[in-house]
Amino acid sequence: MAGPQRTYGRRTLLAAIRKNSPIARIDLAEATGISRATVTTVTAELLRAGLIAEVADESDKSGRGRPRVDLKIDGAAHFIAGVKVANRSLSLVLIDFEGNQLAEVDYPLGRQTFAPDGLATALHDGLTALMGTVGKGISDLSGVGIGIAGIVDVHSGLVHWSPSLSERNVRLQARIENALGVPVFLDNDANLVAMAEKQFGVGRTAKDFIVVTIESGVGMGIVINNEIYRGTRGCGAEFGHTKVQLDGALCRCGQRGCLEAYVADYALLREAQFLNDGAGDASSEQQIEQLLTRAQQGDALASNIVNRAGRMFAMGLANIVNIFDPELIILAGERMQFDHLYAEEVLDSIKSSIVQVDQSPPEVVIHKWDDLMWAKGAAGYALEGVEEAAVKAVSMQDA
Amino acid sequence: MAGPQRTYGRRTLLAAIRKNSPIARIDLAEATGISRATVTTVTAELLRAGLIAEVADESDKSGRGRPRVDLKIDGAAHFIAGVKVANRSLSLVLIDFEGNQLAEVDYPLGRQTFAPDGLATALHDGLTALMGTVGKGISDLSGVGIGIAGIVDVHSGLVHWSPSLSERNVRLQARIENALGVPVFLDNDANLVAMAEKQFGVGRTAKDFIVVTIESGVGMGIVINNEIYRGTRGCGAEFGHTKVQLDGALCRCGQRGCLEAYVADYALLREAQFLNDGAGDASSEQQIEQLLTRAQQGDALASNIVNRAGRMFAMGLANIVNIFDPELIILAGERMQFDHLYAEEVLDSIKSSIVQVDQSPPEVVIHKWDDLMWAKGAAGYALEGVEEAAVKAVSMQDA
Repeated sequence: MAGPQRTYGRRTLLAAIRKNSPIARIDLAEATGISRATVTTVTAELLRAGLIAEVADESDKSGRGRPRVDLKIDGAAHFIAGVKVANRSLSLVLIDFEGNQLAEVDYPLGRQTFAPDGLATALHDGLTALMGTVGKGISDLSGVGIGIAGIVDVHSGLVHWSPSLSERNVRLQARIENALGVPVFLDNDANLVAMAEKQFGVGRTAKDFIVVTIESGVGMGIVINNEIYRGTRGCGAEFGHTKVQLDGALCRCGQRGCLEAYVADYALLREAQFLNDGAGDASSEQQIEQLLTRAQQGDALASNIVNRAGRMFAMGLANIVNIFDPELIILAGERMQFDHLYAEEVLDSIKSSIVQVDQSPPEVVIHKWDDLMWAKGAAGYALEGVEEAAVKAVSMQDA
Repeated sequence: MAGPQRTYGRRTLLAAIRKNSPIARIDLAEATGISRATVTTVTAELLRAGLIAEVADESDKSGRGRPRVDLKIDGAAHFIAGVKVANRSLSLVLIDFEGNQLAEVDYPLGRQTFAPDGLATALHDGLTALMGTVGKGISDLSGVGIGIAGIVDVHSGLVHWSPSLSERNVRLQARIENALGVPVFLDNDANLVAMAEKQFGVGRTAKDFIVVTIESGVGMGIVINNEIYRGTRGCGAEFGHTKVQLDGALCRCGQRGCLEAYVADYALLREAQFLNDGAGDASSEQQIEQLLTRAQQGDALASNIVNRAGRMFAMGLANIVNIFDPELIILAGERMQFDHLYAEEVLDSIKSSIVQVDQSPPEVVIHKWDDLMWAKGAAGYALEGVEEAAVKAVSMQDA
């Protein structure tokens, strides 16, 4: 069998073992359509490479002869870390090659914005703390996934802009890889929420879905055909900067009429200034909470602010449905705690703004996350990269 | 070699022959990474099935020994027709399995809107006329591709709504297939322009691109990873019904603020009524032309109408860029003859509304089509379907 086809076989079988673990060889042949002979050869290779392991089939109660043996991913094959760079902390998680979570750490940061080398140092320290909890070091890692807010070109590892960085156009992946000495997989954090939903969350059974995250900004991750869609320049899915109004409200990006300029924290606070009754010392979070409480209590001005945000959000989401027609839309993020902002009225408003066909509109699911789950998405992204490299390594030996 | 892998080999080799035709067996092995032995076996099968043919290598001037033999797609293997259902005519084109155009016919229709069986009859008559030009009949066709305006679910062959049909929710593919006795491949016409651009046009070298068509409505075709993206319910890419204004202008779909309600013919004419100086007898086309001429001449009211349409169009397109980040945007369709509407100012306006990164924005290309090229797209779509069926047939014989 030719090289590319054998690589295809390795990839397919490893994926099938991951999905159906534990699984017997004969069922693998059935599930993939690959011949039993090839399954035997390739799984022997994968066993030799330490990527999979044999386990006794517990369902085999016959007690006769040699017990049936199943295959599973060998968790011990690789350690992989995931990191979400949050506002004032790093959320870190450690998983094994099977995807089991081994440790988690919340590592506080002294500041919000870093020079690139400063961020690399912080990541080094945070990862050292994470690995310390299992008595290991950074060099025991096969890969580190990192999610960062901003505009990230995954192909080149370039961060065009991030609220966590004091410089623009930073080759951040290379800088961090140098500092850690471990392969680094860097992506926009909203993409990694999509990855987490795909691997561990409500997106597991959907082929095409969209994740919208609402924090201080509005982010989006697009999954098409089970893969994160990243666009040509690696910087698509800028949902927060789609325009919902010609010459509309000013956005912090410098343009006018962006969705963010109507629904983000700063947009609500900008309008809420008319509400302020000497609450000058309150934090943004407190002010937002105050605004929403007032709206709930029926204050006309507060309701006016909150309602428009909801309607603009619905309009933006309906546009996504009209363009993508996804199976599922997942609304994720911290701000989701304010259910009443993005609840029934908003969902109804989406339904009445999408193209009407005699089929159900896509399901909209609200999924609250904490930073740790974002970190798990980052780890899942690195896991895919590590697996691909491992399959390639087996293929190289074969060539 | 196992079944699925052999099918993969057949598909890959046929695609490589199509792309590089004529090509020698040894170069095929090189181009695909498939072993020479497998190339020999599979190409022998494809030759036996009549899908490919051998040709003498004209570059082989050595004159020594047996001349080198190349492989090409055998055009005579299949006849395939493509049809665009236009406003008052059917545009029909006949191609062979190699993609060469053999005939074209413009078949006038007595009306714009049909009951499903009436449309099937019209298609039967149009195709009979097309095949008559080469002395053949409908039963000589291996497939017919049909493009129709409206909301089409390609998975089920269901047309939710079309301006060409008097009924909603018609299982049109099955109805036409029954009437013709030939496999029918039905799709939204904008998708088929995307297909034509991918196979024969400026999209040949792009992996991710978007085609926007402007006629009486606004359509969009999305190509992701070299494939038409169709959405879960088969009805995505409804660019014309993305909302550009909350509670905005009324659209013929019944909703408010749709892009179409600002840029389509009817939207311009609705506003142009203040301009009318007794031109009550002029056709819509004439009235539009009059409006555009006046705007060009500097008439304030006319310019006001035309400029807003351009700016709304730019805003909608910028949103597509912010979401998809495609390599290329192709503006296609008849209305493109009014270059000044969608020219420099509009393109500049797009650039200033997309997320700013230090990379060039996607290329925007204006490509004028006639209905015949839409028909070619329909034929190209059917060609893909016929090829897939042919490969499957070879694989069935093998099993």
